[in-house]
Amino acid sequence: MFDNFNELKNAKAKDVKGKIVFLNQLMDAAQIITFKAYGGCYPIRGEGAIEAAKLGAIAVIIRSLGLPEDQFPHTGSMKYDDKVTKIPAAALSTEDANSVAQLLKKGSLTLHLELDCRVFPDAESFNVIAEITGKKSNEIITFGGHLDSWDTGEGAHDDGAGCMQGIEVLRLYKQLGWKPKRTLRAVMWMNEENGLRGGQEYARVAKEKGEKHIAAIESDSGGFLPIGFSSTGTEAQRAKLVSWAELLRPYQLWNLQKPGGGADIGPLRDQGTLLIGLLPDSQKYFIYHHTEADVFEAVDKRELELGAAGMAALVYLLDQEGIQ
Amino acid sequence: MFDNFNELKNAKAKDVKGKIVFLNQLMDAAQIITFKAYGGCYPIRGEGAIEAAKLGAIAVIIRSLGLPEDQFPHTGSMKYDDKVTKIPAAALSTEDANSVAQLLKKGSLTLHLELDCRVFPDAESFNVIAEITGKKSNEIITFGGHLDSWDTGEGAHDDGAGCMQGIEVLRLYKQLGWKPKRTLRAVMWMNEENGLRGGQEYARVAKEKGEKHIAAIESDSGGFLPIGFSSTGTEAQRAKLVSWAELLRPYQLWNLQKPGGGADIGPLRDQGTLLIGLLPDSQKYFIYHHTEADVFEAVDKRELELGAAGMAALVYLLDQEGIQ
Repeated sequence: MFDNFNELKNAKAKDVKGKIVFLNQLMDAAQIITFKAYGGCYPIRGEGAIEAAKLGAIAVIIRSLGLPEDQFPHTGSMKYDDKVTKIPAAALSTEDANSVAQLLKKGSLTLHLELDCRVFPDAESFNVIAEITGKKSNEIITFGGHLDSWDTGEGAHDDGAGCMQGIEVLRLYKQLGWKPKRTLRAVMWMNEENGLRGGQEYARVAKEKGEKHIAAIESDSGGFLPIGFSSTGTEAQRAKLVSWAELLRPYQLWNLQKPGGGADIGPLRDQGTLLIGLLPDSQKYFIYHHTEADVFEAVDKRELELGAAGMAALVYLLDQEGIQ
Repeated sequence: MFDNFNELKNAKAKDVKGKIVFLNQLMDAAQIITFKAYGGCYPIRGEGAIEAAKLGAIAVIIRSLGLPEDQFPHTGSMKYDDKVTKIPAAALSTEDANSVAQLLKKGSLTLHLELDCRVFPDAESFNVIAEITGKKSNEIITFGGHLDSWDTGEGAHDDGAGCMQGIEVLRLYKQLGWKPKRTLRAVMWMNEENGLRGGQEYARVAKEKGEKHIAAIESDSGGFLPIGFSSTGTEAQRAKLVSWAELLRPYQLWNLQKPGGGADIGPLRDQGTLLIGLLPDSQKYFIYHHTEADVFEAVDKRELELGAAGMAALVYLLDQEGIQ
């Protein structure tokens, strides 16, 4: 058992060889931005199997990257290195991790590990796109989330919420009968979780068709209370976004300074598109992220709608004023 | 049945006389700040009995001032006018209000009203106070909430949360062994709900003793995600508070501009005290306010702690820099 990733990296092969390594690193609850606590723990999941195998471990189990103590294992991406033996890796729920840690303090444990993970062959899938065509039909503002989800739960926060918010922006403007200057496009990108293929293909096709994406908004941090927008772009683009602060405040969108955007819209950046991420409060994300608990009932309808309303307000500003 | 307070005010006595008036005004869910929606509906509860009695009604029932559709009646203060007959008044849950409204559309209804509300004689009670005495022991920064609650539920959000956050600020500084310049005082004011007697007595005694309260922070808007501080004071006091924006942002306390404070600290204002209210997100307050649902389990521990941490950060700044 190691309490953090550095302990494993500093361990000696003789203490690890032939054993199952248990990485019991706690997320730092004192981090107000929970994504920072997640980032601090990420190496045990992302690189734990490689580092443990280097020292001769036969498998690795980790404490889930989740904030509450509960019975839901949190899964997620992990890496292998072709030069290092690929050993099995699995995540325990935080409560089970506590139990195993307690038992290990009393002596060595025998753990029977049975996993049925497999990689299936690729299958064809699609981005799903809807739009209100604007007068300048080739200038596009896109917004939405990703259609796929991790295989546990329903992916309601990650990222059903972002998909629904994208659709809701279009629905609101359709209901108002509003004629935008630019084309407003809701996109549900496919395959974010396993390689961003939808986002990459979307950007490739946009370039091929000569479409000009002035801005792209992704909602992929959960359907929680919106508190602002993160962004990646030129200094001028970001300054213009921040200049709308007073107009976005009635929606309680305060934080416009954080760098960011979204995984699926990232490939658009080299076409000059301003990347924007809807920024919700992060307190509850790591209760649900990649677990069986990420279901429809865990999404607060009012908070979800507030996010869509905030996105719609920003889409209006982008459409009317442009951003480049 | 009237759909809002103005309809009642414009009604004719012949349509109301001898009847039970039903006020079915919906809170405006499109108001992002839910307290605005509450304010818009308040007259039906506060003044409904007076206006209905003026027209000869024998009782009034209202749709609860709550956002969700559920089975919890929301209670709260209401007024009588000594010049107008005092008629019974009661609140229905929003679901029951929907049922009654549907039935009334089909024809007239007979309603049997049985209430056991009484006003008991006054009894002695106390504010509860704890402090860390500072070097300037007579310069005081006070913070906390009110100890009493409405008689439904447990008063966990209103205002157990504020009481606990006040205690937590002291506990944090005691644990750190910090010696403040000024006296830090956690106060649980008594009897906010029925006349502010604790707050009034606190201010009276402060004046009598010649204590100088430089600032008072009240948390009485629920133990939800903190997003800023409201305040009432001189322009210079408020400008100084806003000048700390960058220092409060790491706690995600963005909104420092809203006027406000707290009911219990209000009586300190004429002693020159800067009044400050912890400002939490308002989305969920009117699920719980003055209902059986306002219980311990409805408070998110992490959000409650964030509020206390934010208050502690502000108390530190007030202590070190002063505010007058």
